[in-house]
Amino acid sequence: MESIKVRIPATVANMVCGFDILGMAVENPYDEIELRLTDKSGITIKHTDDYNLPTEAEKNVAGVSLIALLEEYSKPVGFEMTITKNIKPGSGLGSSAASAAGAVVAANLLLGNIFSKEDLVRFAMNGERLASGVKHADNITPCIFGSVTLIRSIFPLDIVPLSAPPMFVTIVHPQIEVKTSDARQILRKEIQLKDAIQQWGNIAGLVSGLLKNDYELIGRSLEDVLIEPVRSILIPGFDEVKKRSKEAGALGGGISGSGPSIFMLSKEAATAKAIEQVMSELYGKMGIEYKTYVTSISRNGVCVVNN
Amino acid sequence: MESIKVRIPATVANMVCGFDILGMAVENPYDEIELRLTDKSGITIKHTDDYNLPTEAEKNVAGVSLIALLEEYSKPVGFEMTITKNIKPGSGLGSSAASAAGAVVAANLLLGNIFSKEDLVRFAMNGERLASGVKHADNITPCIFGSVTLIRSIFPLDIVPLSAPPMFVTIVHPQIEVKTSDARQILRKEIQLKDAIQQWGNIAGLVSGLLKNDYELIGRSLEDVLIEPVRSILIPGFDEVKKRSKEAGALGGGISGSGPSIFMLSKEAATAKAIEQVMSELYGKMGIEYKTYVTSISRNGVCVVNN
Repeated sequence: MESIKVRIPATVANMVCGFDILGMAVENPYDEIELRLTDKSGITIKHTDDYNLPTEAEKNVAGVSLIALLEEYSKPVGFEMTITKNIKPGSGLGSSAASAAGAVVAANLLLGNIFSKEDLVRFAMNGERLASGVKHADNITPCIFGSVTLIRSIFPLDIVPLSAPPMFVTIVHPQIEVKTSDARQILRKEIQLKDAIQQWGNIAGLVSGLLKNDYELIGRSLEDVLIEPVRSILIPGFDEVKKRSKEAGALGGGISGSGPSIFMLSKEAATAKAIEQVMSELYGKMGIEYKTYVTSISRNGVCVVNN
Repeated sequence: MESIKVRIPATVANMVCGFDILGMAVENPYDEIELRLTDKSGITIKHTDDYNLPTEAEKNVAGVSLIALLEEYSKPVGFEMTITKNIKPGSGLGSSAASAAGAVVAANLLLGNIFSKEDLVRFAMNGERLASGVKHADNITPCIFGSVTLIRSIFPLDIVPLSAPPMFVTIVHPQIEVKTSDARQILRKEIQLKDAIQQWGNIAGLVSGLLKNDYELIGRSLEDVLIEPVRSILIPGFDEVKKRSKEAGALGGGISGSGPSIFMLSKEAATAKAIEQVMSELYGKMGIEYKTYVTSISRNGVCVVNN
């Protein structure tokens, strides 16, 4: 096998209350990467999308992730990579993570599956550092492991894959720009202990709900008293979207990653569709361009596409 | 049925990282309450132990819990209660919660099981308010529900019973006094967001470990970067007990409730016994009186004792 094509899911980091520790992979939108193994070193990158991303390996999130992988591989090989992005950069849907994770998963398959999934997360974290300045892993991990993942600790890296009951995910991406670095900047560095207690009650509730297939508990736990009240200010219409989505039957939801995308979880497909309607109406009225997705949890993360 | 006798488990609140939200019931030590239903109103209380606790209903934690229950019952009945405490007040093992929980569970059985477990927690919280000034429920809830419990939210009360794999619990109670109010007073009201993130990673890890029967994950998650570093100062020998217990094979552990008792979890009975040895040696050398228990998780909480 000298060439491989993979499909890479978008990811919803934080999942409302699990700031910096929880993430979930979804089926749609997704990126694609085609990777060819070459016997001379060096990485060439081609983008087939219109996002005008850098193609020099050292400046490309997928590129630096492959460089990190090759440093540990230590044999003189190289890659030719073609990236097709559908996950818009800056959407809050793990666009940079998708590029980084897809590249290293594909490379590992071409090299005979010699690295563990944890290794691949470590390599791809270099892409996140390039993209946002922080080596975070809450998008990369669900992207590579699938379903929902918990990062108990980042140094040392301790990943806990979590099961989840079948759920539908409605996403709206209002086409405004929120920089991850800005969204991080406006957070308070000191918080009240009493707020933290409320937050970790919800996190424990969400994890319990996911593992016990308790939809009601998942819904009640999707509450964020710390991050959302601050970050949602950057997203026009957020409160209204949330309120009306819940009225339409959503279990709950909130900001995807650092925004501006908003996600909502539902038990039934019909509810997820009704929520899409609500979102479309609201952003239509506001005159803000938007894109919606009705999708489900990606159980396997990055997967090989058969041609 | 006019009279009933119940056995009430000690409880370990917080479980290291789960400050104010997690608690676990253990088989030993335990209290006993004998309760008789009378057809004239009023509550009389007798203590068969030497702790010199108040016997006036309004000043007794079990008494005020029964008063709260009777307010909702609204028929003119009364109780004669005999309390035998083995869980020493101020031990950090849920002594006041045991009195409060035992009384209301026994009363509910005598009245024909008309209240839910959540109701009983609410009644017993009045006892905790009397004891510590705070209506907390992290000891009462595992006492009534058994096993490990999560309090996702206290207002409104949202209780999540959690399963746990078989584990042994070693407890040492150094006979020094730590007042709950003091132990709460010394905590900082503002904390760093980055510490909170580490804490909720551990809480999510602990809940996952319990529900997935993953002993290693439970062990790695029993880490507290916020409360333990402050409170452990009040407990002589704490660091040494923890270090040497882990060397002896403990999965992990820490302060029980607000202390001074220390608990350690183990997978094997032999390890739990070895840890008891370690604890005894350390407090023996320090010349501090102590009491140890080697026990296991109480699966059912308060239970009826057959005479």
